[in-house]
Amino acid sequence: MVSLTDGQKATLSPEAIEFLTNIHHVPFAQILAPFIASPRRVPELRRGLVEKTAPGEAALIEKYGLVVEVVNIAGLSVAIITPANVKPEKQNKLVFNVFGGATIMGSPRDRGALTMAAELGVRVCSPDYTKAPEGRYPVARDQCLAVYRELIQKGLPGTSHSPSAPPVPINPADMYAMGSSSGAQVLVSMLLVARREGLPMPTAGLYLCTPALDLSGAGDSMTFNARDRDIMPVSLLTTMVTQNYVPLPGVEVDGMGFGGTTDPLYSPLYADYGNEDGAAPWFPRTVMTVGTRDFALSHGVRFYWKLREAGVEVELLVSEGMWHGFNWNPKVPEALTARVAVV
Amino acid sequence: MVSLTDGQKATLSPEAIEFLTNIHHVPFAQILAPFIASPRRVPELRRGLVEKTAPGEAALIEKYGLVVEVVNIAGLSVAIITPANVKPEKQNKLVFNVFGGATIMGSPRDRGALTMAAELGVRVCSPDYTKAPEGRYPVARDQCLAVYRELIQKGLPGTSHSPSAPPVPINPADMYAMGSSSGAQVLVSMLLVARREGLPMPTAGLYLCTPALDLSGAGDSMTFNARDRDIMPVSLLTTMVTQNYVPLPGVEVDGMGFGGTTDPLYSPLYADYGNEDGAAPWFPRTVMTVGTRDFALSHGVRFYWKLREAGVEVELLVSEGMWHGFNWNPKVPEALTARVAVV
Repeated sequence: MVSLTDGQKATLSPEAIEFLTNIHHVPFAQILAPFIASPRRVPELRRGLVEKTAPGEAALIEKYGLVVEVVNIAGLSVAIITPANVKPEKQNKLVFNVFGGATIMGSPRDRGALTMAAELGVRVCSPDYTKAPEGRYPVARDQCLAVYRELIQKGLPGTSHSPSAPPVPINPADMYAMGSSSGAQVLVSMLLVARREGLPMPTAGLYLCTPALDLSGAGDSMTFNARDRDIMPVSLLTTMVTQNYVPLPGVEVDGMGFGGTTDPLYSPLYADYGNEDGAAPWFPRTVMTVGTRDFALSHGVRFYWKLREAGVEVELLVSEGMWHGFNWNPKVPEALTARVAVV
Repeated sequence: MVSLTDGQKATLSPEAIEFLTNIHHVPFAQILAPFIASPRRVPELRRGLVEKTAPGEAALIEKYGLVVEVVNIAGLSVAIITPANVKPEKQNKLVFNVFGGATIMGSPRDRGALTMAAELGVRVCSPDYTKAPEGRYPVARDQCLAVYRELIQKGLPGTSHSPSAPPVPINPADMYAMGSSSGAQVLVSMLLVARREGLPMPTAGLYLCTPALDLSGAGDSMTFNARDRDIMPVSLLTTMVTQNYVPLPGVEVDGMGFGGTTDPLYSPLYADYGNEDGAAPWFPRTVMTVGTRDFALSHGVRFYWKLREAGVEVELLVSEGMWHGFNWNPKVPEALTARVAVV
């Protein structure tokens, strides 16, 4: 249960207060986490999330006249979300979206993808990567990379929006990329590998929403926002990841052994974003959102300084009293403010 | 006592860990605050601070060859700190500094003023305003405003650096302004009144360090950083302010009754920073620093959004695991990084 003092309520919208005071945490999360988040229980967790989110997603599709289609790119199902009115200056633009869900849950046509298509007036392309435990690290990253590579090299296949149009390679300068929560881990890891491969970056802008970028457990907010401040106890989230997503012992990753939880591709906060002396930064312009109640506050804070020191154009938007994943809340004004600030 | 988990230590410098683990809080602060912070005890609190800070200040003066002089401006003693080497491009520049100290303590030639003169290579002008309880709100604000007005209109009196030079009005475009902690409250309130008077703003830049901008007690971090995370329990700080700085009942403020702790000049977070439609923002370009352990985190976060929505150019630098007033720590690398980012 999330509790709020009068001083905390004074700086929140009524909608945010209602949201927070209606959060009910699993009791004894720290003790029960290994059972709740065991691989056997994952299908049930996924069903629970779908039940909770489906009505909101249907409402968004209806309200904004969004068209959701599935195409095959690089052998993977990919959701293409087309807004009723693509803004004229955004006809050629595309958001490459990596959904989140603690690595084990979530959907390529989730609230985040739908909201961005609707509010930004731009098409969203969202790979339906294999979630954990069926796909442990780096399966999702490699699947997303294959889709990204094909978009850049071959283009987007035809949809009902332009059924007869042959695929045209997407100009990286027209591509935004977006990752929420664990989706940001997949996305930034993907960009690091794309860079090694010599692929161009999505330079229209990178948007990381309450990003999970350090899966080692480090960070100030991983302690102070761990229990009764965020939407979920951190112990539950970390157990989801350690029991389902971490490579199994002895499995090769990227042609070598797994480098542990601070491996710079597994926890992209430990990677190097610098460039040769004098060269322009290679990492795209980045906007991040975090909340002060968010377990990922420290992830955002640390990644901000890391990118800044590498000369990358970066902005960190910290929102008062906001929680993990708050960006996509349709009712909370603080979320709308953060979304407006991105565009 | 400030405690740290392994996960928190992992993202801090060894110097920061040493600093934090050596903090010892007054026990039973919430109960003892009214006694510790009573007006009768203020002289002792000031002496304690001087004893603690004098050696560090002397070391800074020695190390950087700073010249500290006192001049009279608008009837007030004002410290002028001149670095050994004023950078050529900064000969005409001046930092207008308002020191902090929970409204009851502090010095115009404190570590912050000395550090900025040394590291920025620019002269600092720092009014020795009357602290509380001798000067309750708005005494400090009005004294600083009188000094600011005279600097703009008449100029800086001669110092040993330029003894025979007649005072030359300071060009507001050459003036930086800086306020730390409660000094930020005084400074921003001063700028709001200066604006009403039609005085020009210090447009070289505004620097607010772990700023206290809401003296009403509101804010998420006022709760979650209240006890064992920051350098001092919030209960002690707020009692210092409520027992010494708040205007006494029935006293006129600005020609009227005091508007309470959310009065927009007393708690500048509640003021309006907008301008007429289409007009350029009137508030100067602002850089703020806060830390994730800082009770003022939410002050910085909320002021960031307030200024941003008014179209002001504003940057909020959030530092991982840092505490209130961390900016001026000479040994902690995180503090140096934040200072470098300002210039």
